[in-house]
Amino acid sequence: MTNDPRIAARLHVADGLSGATLTLDAARAHYLRNVLRLAPGARIAVFNARDGEFAATITALTKNAASVALGERRRPPQAEPDLWLCFAPIKRARLDTMVEKATELGVARLIPVFTRHTVMERVNGERLAAIATEAAEQSERLAVPIVEPATDLARLLDDWPADRALIVADESGGGLPIAAALAALSGPLAVLTGPEGGFARDEFERLARHPSVRRVGLGPRILKADTAAIAALAVVQAVAGDGAQAPRFIAEDATSPASG
Amino acid sequence: MTNDPRIAARLHVADGLSGATLTLDAARAHYLRNVLRLAPGARIAVFNARDGEFAATITALTKNAASVALGERRRPPQAEPDLWLCFAPIKRARLDTMVEKATELGVARLIPVFTRHTVMERVNGERLAAIATEAAEQSERLAVPIVEPATDLARLLDDWPADRALIVADESGGGLPIAAALAALSGPLAVLTGPEGGFARDEFERLARHPSVRRVGLGPRILKADTAAIAALAVVQAVAGDGAQAPRFIAEDATSPASG
Repeated sequence: MTNDPRIAARLHVADGLSGATLTLDAARAHYLRNVLRLAPGARIAVFNARDGEFAATITALTKNAASVALGERRRPPQAEPDLWLCFAPIKRARLDTMVEKATELGVARLIPVFTRHTVMERVNGERLAAIATEAAEQSERLAVPIVEPATDLARLLDDWPADRALIVADESGGGLPIAAALAALSGPLAVLTGPEGGFARDEFERLARHPSVRRVGLGPRILKADTAAIAALAVVQAVAGDGAQAPRFIAEDATSPASG
Repeated sequence: MTNDPRIAARLHVADGLSGATLTLDAARAHYLRNVLRLAPGARIAVFNARDGEFAATITALTKNAASVALGERRRPPQAEPDLWLCFAPIKRARLDTMVEKATELGVARLIPVFTRHTVMERVNGERLAAIATEAAEQSERLAVPIVEPATDLARLLDDWPADRALIVADESGGGLPIAAALAALSGPLAVLTGPEGGFARDEFERLARHPSVRRVGLGPRILKADTAAIAALAVVQAVAGDGAQAPRFIAEDATSPASG
């Protein structure tokens, strides 16, 4: 369940990494005991963005709680990219894919944005946060993306921070190709994607007029909303983000890493 | 179901676009009749890579067959990217996502490659071809990617065409960042991704020694196999592919396009 064969699990724990022992909640105990089938003595890692990542050994494991003894610090806290994804909620399976992939690609904030053609009537922020947490655990991140309360497009644009460029895919061909657009940008970035049916005409016109919006092209094919989000984030990180950093691979004696 | 409000469906049809009428098979008839709930008189589009795309009007529609009258040509045949994705089969939901996204991102050939740590014992080429066909229909492609018969890693590398670079994600940090690696490449490209557990050590060493392999870094986070494939393909198209081309958006009077 981890990329380091010396540990059996990697868990995000928001608080309590400064002591000698730690008690995990029932959900975590269930995961360690019934999903991973671990027992006392098993080595895991626990982490959060403020404290970094620590080795830990399971000392007690019941149906409802787990205790671990904290060991050495494996990684210090460390800055992660300041990249946001604003997205119209889409149908569940694709939304889950989008949130998982956005987390793997290093997004710091996930902002649900209702638009005219958005079919979904609500968004389950807790479920999205759980998906983001699991993806952060498995992708070796220290920070879990923050799932913001849902907003709507008008409010998002009214309150938009002036220093952050908002990248919007434009299938009409009205934008620069994304690689060229990114080369002309500095400062923090966000990506915005629409619902399955796209933005309404007046929404798109409003986006085009907004001073922070950069319309970009993602090539000649029409992409689904989740694909557009994932593709844009991948290109942002590769061209203008932390794509030049190597993985923080800890285990010197691990089997050869790959794109698993 | 299409990006052009003037047509109700866009169907890939391998043969028969040179006549005045066309008979569609039972699966297509079912899709038009029971999924899209169309009736005779509805306007659709039919396409393939050899003939281009044509307007068509449904003239008869029963449970088992549909007939259409072919109209004007909407698009001539046109070259599409010569980009391959070689992939170790992964679990079904992620494999389906990978094939769909790879098709949207313009892949021409999908090549399943069994490796030491591949958990899946077989790959259903027909199912993958159906997913690729649907993704091609919805992404406005003219060509449907070819799903090749499965091979294994040794055979893939033995038979590899010398002029095509094979891009492999390297989480050990041993490769150039993907954007830098692409800047140094010319000629046709392929991306190779491993199974959930990654490549075995000797497989990875063999890859590293192969003259066509270019190991690349996809940033500091560990990506799942499907994410790695989608991210690498998105960056390839944006940096070294057809990412600078605008969508071939046909409908001048369509609602404002977006990343739907």
